[in-house]
Amino acid sequence: MTLEAEILDGLARTRIAARRLALAGTDRKNRALAALADNLRASTDRILDANRQDLERARAVGDAPAFVERLTLTPDRIAAIARGVEEVAALPDPVGETIARWRRPNGLDIRQVRVPLGVIAIIYESRPNVTVDASVLGFKAGNAVVLRGGSEALSTNALLAELISESLARIDFDPHSVMFIDNPDREAIQILKCHPEAIDLIIPRGGKALKEALAGSAVPILPHFDGICHTYVDRAADLLIAEEICVNAKCSRPSVCNAMETMLVHADIAAKFLPRIADRMRAAGVELRGDDRTCAIIPDALAATAEDWDTEYLDLILAIKVVDSLEQAIEFIARHSSGLADAIVTQDEAEAGRFEREVDSATVFVNASTRFTDGFEFGFGAETGISTNRLHARGPMGLKELTIYKYVIHGNGQIRK
Amino acid sequence: MTLEAEILDGLARTRIAARRLALAGTDRKNRALAALADNLRASTDRILDANRQDLERARAVGDAPAFVERLTLTPDRIAAIARGVEEVAALPDPVGETIARWRRPNGLDIRQVRVPLGVIAIIYESRPNVTVDASVLGFKAGNAVVLRGGSEALSTNALLAELISESLARIDFDPHSVMFIDNPDREAIQILKCHPEAIDLIIPRGGKALKEALAGSAVPILPHFDGICHTYVDRAADLLIAEEICVNAKCSRPSVCNAMETMLVHADIAAKFLPRIADRMRAAGVELRGDDRTCAIIPDALAATAEDWDTEYLDLILAIKVVDSLEQAIEFIARHSSGLADAIVTQDEAEAGRFEREVDSATVFVNASTRFTDGFEFGFGAETGISTNRLHARGPMGLKELTIYKYVIHGNGQIRK
Repeated sequence: MTLEAEILDGLARTRIAARRLALAGTDRKNRALAALADNLRASTDRILDANRQDLERARAVGDAPAFVERLTLTPDRIAAIARGVEEVAALPDPVGETIARWRRPNGLDIRQVRVPLGVIAIIYESRPNVTVDASVLGFKAGNAVVLRGGSEALSTNALLAELISESLARIDFDPHSVMFIDNPDREAIQILKCHPEAIDLIIPRGGKALKEALAGSAVPILPHFDGICHTYVDRAADLLIAEEICVNAKCSRPSVCNAMETMLVHADIAAKFLPRIADRMRAAGVELRGDDRTCAIIPDALAATAEDWDTEYLDLILAIKVVDSLEQAIEFIARHSSGLADAIVTQDEAEAGRFEREVDSATVFVNASTRFTDGFEFGFGAETGISTNRLHARGPMGLKELTIYKYVIHGNGQIRK
Repeated sequence: MTLEAEILDGLARTRIAARRLALAGTDRKNRALAALADNLRASTDRILDANRQDLERARAVGDAPAFVERLTLTPDRIAAIARGVEEVAALPDPVGETIARWRRPNGLDIRQVRVPLGVIAIIYESRPNVTVDASVLGFKAGNAVVLRGGSEALSTNALLAELISESLARIDFDPHSVMFIDNPDREAIQILKCHPEAIDLIIPRGGKALKEALAGSAVPILPHFDGICHTYVDRAADLLIAEEICVNAKCSRPSVCNAMETMLVHADIAAKFLPRIADRMRAAGVELRGDDRTCAIIPDALAATAEDWDTEYLDLILAIKVVDSLEQAIEFIARHSSGLADAIVTQDEAEAGRFEREVDSATVFVNASTRFTDGFEFGFGAETGISTNRLHARGPMGLKELTIYKYVIHGNGQIRK
């Protein structure tokens, strides 16, 4: 069988599984999730063995330590994944919820009811926990899920997918409710994107290469791409608060999309604030790059180039710019932000109000760190990622974001005039 | 200037207009809509003149009478369009609405706030009223709108677009908030679909050719495509109600997407129901095509071929099939429906409940005509069309469906642990 025939055969089974799964009751879905959590714990040694194979391959080809770290599972991490499955089981089931209901003058009763999206393909990179997280979220929201993980985690992912299918089958769910593509060939992505009849949505979690691979997709895409996040320290900021927020936004986990990449500082407080924050950033090992006015105050900062303002460093590097007004900050963010998360630090309510109204990002913060753009931090219990789309869903994606609705209309013989 | 340079220049201005429009207050938007309604009424003669040019061209090339009819404006139709603009002004503004709000244990206050989508391109065919309807809905929801109407209505559309821009400018709105592409070349569509940085969403209202022209679009698409709608007359149907609903669904306006194309009839009542409905349909000039069991009861029905079950006739033709059970009806609909609107006629609540749960169409009717799948009939005040998408919005699209949300998060110095 060719790769295409193999994938299409799998997708046909998954489509059938999706129709059944859409009608499954909450209790039954939760029992399958409980079975999976048990299965993961009971299979800890097997998972570690499979993971060891991936890690050996990664070290053999000389992958970076940070990369190998993300790939690594430990007994603690496996326990955390199993706990996450139980947490999803505890979340309310979005399927069947009545979103709105009204009666028309002609007596028609219209209900807007939440339903699953159908078949969701998730294309992700090296972190094997995504295999479980994405599957259980999609499953709980009544969707069949097609998984295409990074080739580096192939052994781990394949075993996790097997444990998922096995656990579903134990509670009499169609094991094809979760389909795992174990062929690491990039061609698989090209096949997936051509079949809108088989897949309702592709969620790509990855970088530029993945974005390019999905260009021209016939299947709708909900991109989870880059985060160029800003923090604007206003003239009316509490500078102690600003300091803590900026250090947290830059340093707590620089490799993730909600980390700050650019700090904007109002000219009136720059001379006071910049030396203090520079000390803190330096102490944390952050390389500073500034515009002319920044470099005049922090002499050891490197001169930022035009490219810096549009770069997602994902690293201990911070670009800094001094601005003369709130308007300038808003304008700069409109031009350079990726629209994921931007923040203002200010005690001035009017300024805060203007910032939150005019900055059009998925998440806009007042006096808090951009690092809170996250499904767990939002209280969603879990997330499939953070959408950088403007359609369907923006920001952290939880269970509801993996659903859509239909209208159910009851009459007693109404006809249209 | 090349067509591409011209369109990109226009889109750049529209993007700027969109950012301002997103922040406009409700009163100001409503004043612009009132100005437009006045302007349309005052310009009735000019609009009729422009329309006459389109009609002459259409007749000269020999367009079908039904086509010419859709293209035709009359003083009454213009008055109705103006009234529609005032009705949209009277609708609540969706922008700024708080959809959800909650507080996290760490004190963060999270608000989900409705915001415009941005720049919406609407590609439509011959009906010139869409130029106004789509513009005012997009505008009221805070979006800039790019219009690409059918070449047959070029003179009418160009004038209507001019009147819109003029009316906006009177209330100091950027006239580029509505951009009209007056080049009838198909190339324009190919240009639009390549610029996701300039356009946030394309809403195509048209047939197969438009669908194909938009294949591989880099801009997200919310298709408004075909309607293959079913009515299932259950064994427990009130046959008088069934008769009225089926006649209405087929005959009240056969050329539209929510008209019934296929009628499914339970075997137990087929011998009683089919002769009656056949009489009514024949009287209305409907050609009947049936499966073997239907033809045995209605001898003058033509034999339906496999193709009939997947055809959107948009005409006075009805395909009929006899089924043995509710399951068979649901299975048939799953295979052949386009997912726009499907109905059951039954007095059996359990059967109705199963049908509404298992049929996954944008609108599912119990004892009512599929013709109610319509923004006006839903009480939305207006519509940009009916989405056949599974993402973002399904079914009739009103103001809310032309928006998305952002999260505004207030803290007092929270940082992530």
